[in-house]
Amino acid sequence: MGSVCSRPIGIRSASVDDAFWSAEQELVRTAVLPYQWKALNDQVPGAAPSYCMHNFRAAAAQNRRLSAQASKDGRGNAPTYTNRGFNCLPEDPSHPDPDKFYGYVFQDTDFSKWVEAVGYSLAHHPDEELERTADEAIETVCAAQLENGYLDTYYILNGMDRHFTDLKDHHELYCMGHLIEGAIAYYEGTGKTRLLHAAERFADYVASVFGPEPGRLHGYPGHEIAEMALVRLYETTGVRRYLDLASYFINQRGTEPLYFEQEDRERAEHDGVEYQPDTDWPRPYAYYQAHEPVADQRQAVGHAVRAGYLYAGAADVARLTGDGALDEAVHALWRDIVDRKLYITGGVGANADSESHSYAYDLPNDTGYCETCASVALVFFARRMLELDPRAEYGDVMELALYNNVLDGMALDGKSFFYGNPLEVRPQTRRNHDPRYSYVPIVRKKWFGCACCPPNLARLVESVQDYAYTVGEDGATVFTHLYIGGQVSLDLAGGPLTLCMHSDLPWSGGACATVRLGAGGGGGSLTARECTLAFRLPAWAGGEAAADCVKVHRSCADDAPITKRVSQGYLYLSGPWRDGDGIDFDFDMPVRAMAANPLVSQDAGRVALVRGPIVFCAEERDNGANLHLLHLDGRALLTDGRGIDKAHGGQVEVEPFTFMAGSAPDDPGAAGHVDQVSRPMVRLRVPAWRQSDSQAETRPLYEPWGPVVHEPATALLIPYFAWSNRGENEMRVFLDVG
Amino acid sequence: MGSVCSRPIGIRSASVDDAFWSAEQELVRTAVLPYQWKALNDQVPGAAPSYCMHNFRAAAAQNRRLSAQASKDGRGNAPTYTNRGFNCLPEDPSHPDPDKFYGYVFQDTDFSKWVEAVGYSLAHHPDEELERTADEAIETVCAAQLENGYLDTYYILNGMDRHFTDLKDHHELYCMGHLIEGAIAYYEGTGKTRLLHAAERFADYVASVFGPEPGRLHGYPGHEIAEMALVRLYETTGVRRYLDLASYFINQRGTEPLYFEQEDRERAEHDGVEYQPDTDWPRPYAYYQAHEPVADQRQAVGHAVRAGYLYAGAADVARLTGDGALDEAVHALWRDIVDRKLYITGGVGANADSESHSYAYDLPNDTGYCETCASVALVFFARRMLELDPRAEYGDVMELALYNNVLDGMALDGKSFFYGNPLEVRPQTRRNHDPRYSYVPIVRKKWFGCACCPPNLARLVESVQDYAYTVGEDGATVFTHLYIGGQVSLDLAGGPLTLCMHSDLPWSGGACATVRLGAGGGGGSLTARECTLAFRLPAWAGGEAAADCVKVHRSCADDAPITKRVSQGYLYLSGPWRDGDGIDFDFDMPVRAMAANPLVSQDAGRVALVRGPIVFCAEERDNGANLHLLHLDGRALLTDGRGIDKAHGGQVEVEPFTFMAGSAPDDPGAAGHVDQVSRPMVRLRVPAWRQSDSQAETRPLYEPWGPVVHEPATALLIPYFAWSNRGENEMRVFLDVG
Repeated sequence: MGSVCSRPIGIRSASVDDAFWSAEQELVRTAVLPYQWKALNDQVPGAAPSYCMHNFRAAAAQNRRLSAQASKDGRGNAPTYTNRGFNCLPEDPSHPDPDKFYGYVFQDTDFSKWVEAVGYSLAHHPDEELERTADEAIETVCAAQLENGYLDTYYILNGMDRHFTDLKDHHELYCMGHLIEGAIAYYEGTGKTRLLHAAERFADYVASVFGPEPGRLHGYPGHEIAEMALVRLYETTGVRRYLDLASYFINQRGTEPLYFEQEDRERAEHDGVEYQPDTDWPRPYAYYQAHEPVADQRQAVGHAVRAGYLYAGAADVARLTGDGALDEAVHALWRDIVDRKLYITGGVGANADSESHSYAYDLPNDTGYCETCASVALVFFARRMLELDPRAEYGDVMELALYNNVLDGMALDGKSFFYGNPLEVRPQTRRNHDPRYSYVPIVRKKWFGCACCPPNLARLVESVQDYAYTVGEDGATVFTHLYIGGQVSLDLAGGPLTLCMHSDLPWSGGACATVRLGAGGGGGSLTARECTLAFRLPAWAGGEAAADCVKVHRSCADDAPITKRVSQGYLYLSGPWRDGDGIDFDFDMPVRAMAANPLVSQDAGRVALVRGPIVFCAEERDNGANLHLLHLDGRALLTDGRGIDKAHGGQVEVEPFTFMAGSAPDDPGAAGHVDQVSRPMVRLRVPAWRQSDSQAETRPLYEPWGPVVHEPATALLIPYFAWSNRGENEMRVFLDVG
Repeated sequence: MGSVCSRPIGIRSASVDDAFWSAEQELVRTAVLPYQWKALNDQVPGAAPSYCMHNFRAAAAQNRRLSAQASKDGRGNAPTYTNRGFNCLPEDPSHPDPDKFYGYVFQDTDFSKWVEAVGYSLAHHPDEELERTADEAIETVCAAQLENGYLDTYYILNGMDRHFTDLKDHHELYCMGHLIEGAIAYYEGTGKTRLLHAAERFADYVASVFGPEPGRLHGYPGHEIAEMALVRLYETTGVRRYLDLASYFINQRGTEPLYFEQEDRERAEHDGVEYQPDTDWPRPYAYYQAHEPVADQRQAVGHAVRAGYLYAGAADVARLTGDGALDEAVHALWRDIVDRKLYITGGVGANADSESHSYAYDLPNDTGYCETCASVALVFFARRMLELDPRAEYGDVMELALYNNVLDGMALDGKSFFYGNPLEVRPQTRRNHDPRYSYVPIVRKKWFGCACCPPNLARLVESVQDYAYTVGEDGATVFTHLYIGGQVSLDLAGGPLTLCMHSDLPWSGGACATVRLGAGGGGGSLTARECTLAFRLPAWAGGEAAADCVKVHRSCADDAPITKRVSQGYLYLSGPWRDGDGIDFDFDMPVRAMAANPLVSQDAGRVALVRGPIVFCAEERDNGANLHLLHLDGRALLTDGRGIDKAHGGQVEVEPFTFMAGSAPDDPGAAGHVDQVSRPMVRLRVPAWRQSDSQAETRPLYEPWGPVVHEPATALLIPYFAWSNRGENEMRVFLDVG
C-alpha cells in the first residue's frame, strides 16, 4: 500500500477535550470573540476603531436608498468613484459620517474572520445569544450585497465604476476569500446557508467577470486567500466552477504580460499621473508572488502571509487537478521555507519592513517580523501539503508554528495580541524610540486598526481539531497529525468510526487513542473494521524510531494482527480494528538544544532549547537584564544525538510549574496589561554562567581583552508563547552557549 | 607649573614631511581637489551634479541684472520667495535653467569646503593654476554676495523676503560658517583677503540681525558650524563682535521659549499649513541639540556632525570667555561620547536613520552609521578640548578618529568615498536590497549630491599638521599631540623655534624631534631658550608609563638639565633648550585585543585588534566568506595587561607588507572601482579557528547542538581604513574569540 492523499474532515467531525487546547479555545470563545465583536463595532475604548460593521450598515442603507429611488424614477444614483486611500479615517473620529466608508480597504474581512471563528465555536459550543448576534450581523452583511452578487463595501460606498481596477492593492478578491471561509464555517457550525449563499453569489459574479475568455479580466488577487477559499467552496458545494476559478487565479498569476503591471499603467493613465514601475526585489511584483508563473516559482518571496495563502491554494489545486507542475512548485517552495527561511519558533517573514520573506539564511532574532498571520498561513500550507502527501515533516512544522509563533500572538488572558513575534527584544529599543525596531513589539497590543492577526489566530485556534486529522481518499485511512485530546468521528471503510484521544501534550509525550465503532462514537458494533489508523511520529520524539513508543492493545486477543508500517514519518496501523481497541503512545520528550545552520549568521554560537513541540526562551524577569551576558553551559547540553542526556553529562532540569501571568500596571486598558491568570506549564533550569556586568557603567568603553570571568548561574527558561505576560522585559530564544 | 591652555598654530606654521601623511595629502592635492572642482562644476560624468558654482553664477548674474534695473528705474525686481524644497533638481537634468537654484539648500558649502582645502594646500604647495582657478571662483562667489553682505544663493535666487525664517533646516548660518572657514584658510594659505572680506561682510550682516537686543532675531543655526568659524574669525581678525556672536549662538541655543518651535509655528501660519510639533527623542529639537540650553546638556544627542560642531564651538567659547558652565558641559558631553557612544574606530553616530547618536552602549557594528563627517567633527571637538585642557585622552581620540574612521572615508586612490563607515558588512545585504542596511555602504561612491564627507575629509587631511600642535597661552610651551613628520616653526619664549619631527607612525612607534632655534628653522642661534616642549604619551604606548620611552639628548653636555614632568598624559620637557637638542621617542606598539564594555550587547564575545593608532579588520578577500564563523584563538591573545605578549602566550604576528589596492571591474566609473595603487602597511596574522560551513547548504536549518569542530585557521587582518579597496566583500572589525 502506498501513501494516500487525504482531505479535511470538517469541523463537526472532531471535538477538543484537552487540558491545553480546551483552555486555548475557551479563551478565544469567552475573551476574544466578544472582544472582537465589540472591536468591529468600534466599541472598544482606546482601541483603533474597525468601522467594519459601520461600513456594512452604510452599504445596506445605500442599497435601500438606491433601490427606492430606482423604483421611483427608474434609476438609482450610485456614487461615482472617489479614491479614499488605503486607510481612510473620519476627520472627526467621534462623528463618522454614517454614509461613508472608513478603515482599510479590506475592513470587511474583520467580520468574515469573526464569523468564521463563531462558526467553529458554535459547532461544539451552542450559544443562542452568540448565534443571534451573528445572524443579525449576517443580515446586515447580506443587505450590503449588490444585486449582481458583488460584496465589498469599499467600492459599493466609494463608487462601483472603478471596481476591479486595482486588484493589486484593493483587496476585493481577498474580501471574497475571507467571506467564503467565514460563510462555510458558519454553515458547517450551524447548518445555516444565508451567508453561504451570499458568498456563492459573490463567487458566481467573480467567476463571470474573470477567466481566460476574451473580454473577461485576466487578473488575480493582489492578496491571496480566494484560491484556497474557492477550493473549499468547491469541496463544500461540489460546484466545479469554483475550483476552475481557483485554478485560473493560480495558473494565471505571474504570466506575461504581467497583469499588475498593465493595471498599474492603466490606472496611472486613468488618474493622469505618471506610471511608476514596481521595484520589488528580486523581481517586480515579487512582493505579491506575481513576478513569474506560480508553477515556475522555487523561492518563497514577498509578503509572507500572502505567500503562505498562495502556496496553500496552489497545493489544493495541485491535489484536486493533478497538476504536476504546481505540485513540483509547492514542494520546492516548502523546501525553500523550511530549509532556509523558517525561524525555530515556526515564524516566517524575516523582513519587517515589508512583512516579507528575506533572503536565504537571513533570520535576525531582533528585527525579524514573524507575523502571527504568516504562521497561520504556514499552518494552512502545511495541512495542504499533508493532504497532498502525508509526510511527518509537514506535521512537525504545522505543530511547531501552532504551539509557538501562533499562540505567542495572544496574551494568556486572551485580551492583547502580537502582530510580530520577535525572538529577541530589549526594552531600551522602545524606550529610546529606536527606528530600527519600530516594527518589533515588546508588549502585546489590545487591537489593531489593521486587525488581521487576532481574528486569524482566533479562527485557527477554534478549528485546531480540523488540523489534527485528515481522512484518506481511499476512504479507509484516518491520519492523526496532532496529538490533541478529544474525538474524531468519521465514516471509514463503510461505517462510523470514532477515535477517542487523550493527550498529555505539549508537557509530556503520553497519549492514547481508543477506537469506537458504531454511530455517535458510542461504540456498540461487534464486527471488526478493516481500515488504517495512521499517526505522525514527531521529529521531536525521534521520528520514525518513535514507532517503538507506540503500542496497540486489542480488546479481543484472538483478532488478526494489526500490521505496523512506517512511511515518511507516519506509522500506519492497518488491520481489523475492533471496538475498544486502543493505541498507547509514550513518546520520549527530551530537551533538545538546537543550533542553526552555520549560514545563519545571527545564531552563530547560540542555541535554542526545545522540548516536544515547545520552544523555550529566557525572560529578564527570571534571569536578570542583559541576556547577552548569559551563557548556557555547553557541558550541560551534551546530547546523545537526539536530546540532552544525563548519560552524556546533560543536566537540564524539567520542572512542571504554574505560570502566573499578570503585569504590574493596574490600568487594564494599558498596552501590555495582562490580567492575573495561571496556567500549568513546564520550565527548564539550565546550568549557565554570566559574564559580570557589575559596575560596568563606571568602566571604560573599551578595555584589553582577557578571558571572561564566569559567574555561575542557572538559566530559567519558559515556553516562548508565554513571554511578555509579566510586564515589559528583555527576552531571548537563542542564547549564547560556551 | 600647572597645565596651560593652548591655541592653534596657524596653517603656515607647520608642514608635513612624513611617509604616511605626505602620501595622504598628496592624494588629496592631486586626486581629490581637482575632482572636487569638477564635481562642483557638474563635470563628473555619472556623478550627482552639485550645481554649486552654477548657483553662484546665477546669483551673480541676478545681482548684475537687478543692479542695472535699479540704476535705470530706481528699483530692481528681486524675486519673491518660492520654496523649492530641501533638494531641488532640474526637471531636465541636461538643461538646468541658468537663472535657478539647484541642489541642496546648503550647496554653497561645496565651494567653501573646496576653497578651504585649496587654501591649506597652497600654503605649502604653491600651484599657480590652482590659485588662478580659486581666484576666479572667488570672484564669482563675491559677485553673488548682496550689498548688505548676505551670501546664500538659495535665498538670493529663491527670494530674500523669507531669508532667516527657517534657521532650523535651511542652513544659511551653516553656509556662513563654512564660508568663514574657507575664507580664513585661503587667506592663511595665500595672504589674499578678497574672500575673507566677503566672509566678514556676511558675518557683520548676521551680527546686525541676530542678538539679544529687542527687534533682533533671537535664533541660532539649525546646523552648527558658525560658532567655531566665528571664533576663528575673531582669532584671525581680532574683532570681538565675532566672538560675541558665537557666544550668543551657543548660549541662546535651547533656551525657553524654544526658537525653533516658535519658528515652526510661524512658518506653518505663514504657509497656511497645520503646525506639526517636533517629535525628536528624547526631547523635541534634540536632533538639533536645541532641546535645552547647551550649558545644561550632559548627553550627546541628535545629528552627530551637528553635535560635534556645536561641542567644538562651545569649547572654543568656554576657553575664550572663561564660561565655567559651558566648560562643565563640554567636559560632560565628551565623557558621554567617549564612555558610551564611541566606536572603537573613532566613529560616532550609531543611528543611521537620523545620522544621530544612539542611546548609551548601543553600538551596532552592521547598521551603525559612523559618518565620515561626524569623525571629522569629533577631531575638531578633540582639538578644542586639548586647547582647553591638555589631556592625552583628547589626543588619543583625535588620533583614533583620524587614522581610522576619517581615513576610511576615502579610497586608497583618492577617487571614491564613504559617507558611512560600518564596522561589519555582508554583501548579501546589498545584493538583496535589504532595507535594514540601506544606509550601510559596502563600496565607496564617486561623489554625493549631498557632498559633505569627501570635502570635509579633504580639508582635514590637508590641514592635519594644524592638529598635531598647539601653542601654550604662556607663549613658552609647544604641545605635540600627533607624531607626524615635518616641522613646526613658532615664536616661543621670545624667539623663533622650530621643531623638526621624524616619525615612523603609524606602523611603528619610533619618532624623533630636533630643536632649531633661529629664524626660518635653519638654526644658528647659539643661546639657549628657556621653554617647554610637551609631548602626548599615547595610551596605546602605555600612557604615562611611556615617558620612559622618551630620551632627550643635548647638543651641549654642559647645559642645565631639561626637567621632565608628566601631567594628564603629557610629558613636559622644560629647560634651556639649545639649537640641535633632540628628543627620541621609542614607543612600544604592541598589538592589543580590545573588548567592549559588557553593556555593549553587539560586541559580546568579540574582540577588535588594534596596534598603535590603527584598528584592524578582517576582509573576506583574505579570510574567506562567512566571517561570523571565524574565531580568533583566545589563547593567542593573552596579554600582559597592555598588549599581546609572547611571554604570556600571545602569538600575533605583525607583518609589514605592501597593500595592493585595485578592484576587479575595469570600468573606472563603476561604484567601488579603485585604481591599482600600492601602499606600505602592516598586517596581522592571528591564530584562529573556523566553524566548518562545508556543505552547509545541504544541511537542515536546525540541528541538535554539539561542540563545534574547530578547523584551524589564521586570521589575516588589515588596517580598517584600507578595507573595500579590492572589490566588494565581507568585512568585520569585531571578531569572535574563543
